[in-house]
Amino acid sequence: MPSLAELIEAGDVDALHDWLGETGVLETSEELARLDPDDKGLAFRLLPRDRALEVFELLDPPDQQQVLEGLRADRVRHIVESMDPDDRARLLDEMPAMVAHRLIGQLSPHERALTNVLLGYPPESAGRVMSPEFVSLRADMTVEEALAKVRQAGRAAETIYALAVTDGHRRLVGVVSLKKLVLEDTHTVVGDLMATDVHSVRVTDDQEYAARLIQEADLLALPVVDGDDRIVGVFTFDDAMEVLEREQTEDIARQSATTPLGRPYMSASAFGLARARATWLLVLIVAAGLTVQVLQHFEVELATVVTLALFIPLLSGTGGNSGSQAAVAVIRAMAVGEVRFPDLPRVIWREARVGLMLGLMLGAASLIPVGLFFGSDMATVVGLTLVAICTWATLAGSMLPLLAQRFGVDPTVVSAPLITTLVDATGLIIYFLIARAVLDLTA
Amino acid sequence: MPSLAELIEAGDVDALHDWLGETGVLETSEELARLDPDDKGLAFRLLPRDRALEVFELLDPPDQQQVLEGLRADRVRHIVESMDPDDRARLLDEMPAMVAHRLIGQLSPHERALTNVLLGYPPESAGRVMSPEFVSLRADMTVEEALAKVRQAGRAAETIYALAVTDGHRRLVGVVSLKKLVLEDTHTVVGDLMATDVHSVRVTDDQEYAARLIQEADLLALPVVDGDDRIVGVFTFDDAMEVLEREQTEDIARQSATTPLGRPYMSASAFGLARARATWLLVLIVAAGLTVQVLQHFEVELATVVTLALFIPLLSGTGGNSGSQAAVAVIRAMAVGEVRFPDLPRVIWREARVGLMLGLMLGAASLIPVGLFFGSDMATVVGLTLVAICTWATLAGSMLPLLAQRFGVDPTVVSAPLITTLVDATGLIIYFLIARAVLDLTA
Repeated sequence: MPSLAELIEAGDVDALHDWLGETGVLETSEELARLDPDDKGLAFRLLPRDRALEVFELLDPPDQQQVLEGLRADRVRHIVESMDPDDRARLLDEMPAMVAHRLIGQLSPHERALTNVLLGYPPESAGRVMSPEFVSLRADMTVEEALAKVRQAGRAAETIYALAVTDGHRRLVGVVSLKKLVLEDTHTVVGDLMATDVHSVRVTDDQEYAARLIQEADLLALPVVDGDDRIVGVFTFDDAMEVLEREQTEDIARQSATTPLGRPYMSASAFGLARARATWLLVLIVAAGLTVQVLQHFEVELATVVTLALFIPLLSGTGGNSGSQAAVAVIRAMAVGEVRFPDLPRVIWREARVGLMLGLMLGAASLIPVGLFFGSDMATVVGLTLVAICTWATLAGSMLPLLAQRFGVDPTVVSAPLITTLVDATGLIIYFLIARAVLDLTA
Repeated sequence: MPSLAELIEAGDVDALHDWLGETGVLETSEELARLDPDDKGLAFRLLPRDRALEVFELLDPPDQQQVLEGLRADRVRHIVESMDPDDRARLLDEMPAMVAHRLIGQLSPHERALTNVLLGYPPESAGRVMSPEFVSLRADMTVEEALAKVRQAGRAAETIYALAVTDGHRRLVGVVSLKKLVLEDTHTVVGDLMATDVHSVRVTDDQEYAARLIQEADLLALPVVDGDDRIVGVFTFDDAMEVLEREQTEDIARQSATTPLGRPYMSASAFGLARARATWLLVLIVAAGLTVQVLQHFEVELATVVTLALFIPLLSGTGGNSGSQAAVAVIRAMAVGEVRFPDLPRVIWREARVGLMLGLMLGAASLIPVGLFFGSDMATVVGLTLVAICTWATLAGSMLPLLAQRFGVDPTVVSAPLITTLVDATGLIIYFLIARAVLDLTA
């Protein structure tokens, strides 16, 4: 079966109609996202009306924006009006302020109010992605009354599976699941069923924190409260999964020394990609200037024993590799909440042993081949350097993320390229000092 | 407030009791996971009975195992018996076969049967983590009858929010949400409410595939069917989040050239960490042997112009950095389903331009400093090499993951260290060829 992109290129409108009529919403949205920007609106216009909105909701905001750019104004208004308030806020966030402002003006008063509430919270806060439409119950309601309230107010709510229980001042006092309401006797009082030891987040808390809480505690939804503990919205598991995926994409980008793109790879331009990578490449090449200086310092040794130059990439490469292995392991452990700054001494003790073991292994493995081709002196130099570099790089790689966090820097900026570059210069110093001693060179 | 680890070290049982009595289950489980293996059972024994099981369920299987090792046999049996079948299967999977076998033998017949079913499916399959306890409805039931069925069978089920609808042969024909059943009129027929265009997975399908489907399609639960389309279980969103987190940890490990640990960082031994990193370090150092050979080939040039050696780490480092930036971006885009093999030509075209832009930028930036300290000839060599290396490394980094997948290799093994090592040797060849031409050296 041809892909959507191929059908559009072929310009076969009938086949295109068939494809869009037959393919499920999830696959359609995925194929749509992979089209060139101009083709997105085109393909979307050919979608059957009843499925168009579903497909639209599954797209990422930058793709949604590209679809809207290809549609007539009234269609745009209809789609934006039909979106969930939190999804709409995310889309409007991505748009040029002018366009977003005009769109908000066209919404019905109710939807406009909801949207403005969400957009009033700080970027990246839980408030931005929560759903302001939820059902709240009172502790003194019976299950029967509670179910009646759910039936009456539930249609607009994003979830009715986790229900907030509030007091007379809209303050959160507990949470009860719809499962309990359905399974329990209808005369039971909500107050007896609800959990009171509940997790909640402030509306200004970080989205990632809220999303991780949902994940760790296996929640369907998390109540979001204001400064006075009054409930203002709920944060649902599907929003949490989206937030986590976005954060992971950002972390992964940072760990390869790239500024996060903030949009899908394919919807970014080549210039946008280059810009995201340029800053770090420049920073790293300036830092790498240090290696030039180190080598210049040892130029006499290099001129005397040219063989020393041959092992520079191998040694600094191995240092970089073992350093980034350690850094990545520690950063991940920090991200999932397993390692924190007070664990630094334990981490150092573990990684020092790991680095030494790896260094001894590599050093031993190198002795015979290097000895055969370059003599026993070079084998000694390379072997000892590998032990020292591995231990040092592993230690540095594991400590830097923890130290970064301690000083308020996001540990994910301690990227493999950064470690590699930092370890390069120090590794070279180790190498030439060992070479001087073993080969009996005098500067 | 002191941490759990500090209290245990101080041996203050009263303070320990207070801490465990006051702290929420989520935080308790997190602190417990960070304890030394021997202390885990100790702290767990002091937990109030009513919260112990909840805390236990929030732990990862390797941590759960360490807790159990510190408990009496009857307590172990009680805890394992009380677990959800899918969580239990995961725990038993982690245990030594002997221990697992003995534990299974002690379960009640019903729980044993459920567990054996799950353990009968292949590792990493959806069957291993699905819940075999679910509620299924018939299309000809009214909402009232359906709710009665939910009330009767729902207590044991892991979720009642997404309900499977089956025909007379247990074949899946649709899915209906509890939300619909609660909100709709009680006389409506389930067949009119259910969605028939439903996602489902085979019991032998990969867990990650199932988890991604749940995430992409915003599902609460996904029906799992056997080869004859008969429903055998449901895969819930919380299992999906766990599978995705585990897969991400594995992917991240692979991308730093580390064999996935399969257990939390802190619960692995130093030797275990070293073993996970050793294989790739050895592979990479053997590959780096190529750089020694390349440099040996250009030994005459190196001996003639020692200055050439000074730029080796800077140039190969920059190649490695730009190559891993590209590789990581493409691997992530592939992981979220945005880029596939047929996109290779588009990816090449984008990344070729990105690499050229970055190379031109770095080349231009290097001209003045290199020119000032090493003369215009070296500046020309370094500048031209940066343009060539960046373009080549970016192209190689973006193509390799796609080619790997094409040949059935997991694209995440195309790690930053692997790219760096591969680009090193080719980068050196480029460097010395340019140097030969510009500096007019003859070998």
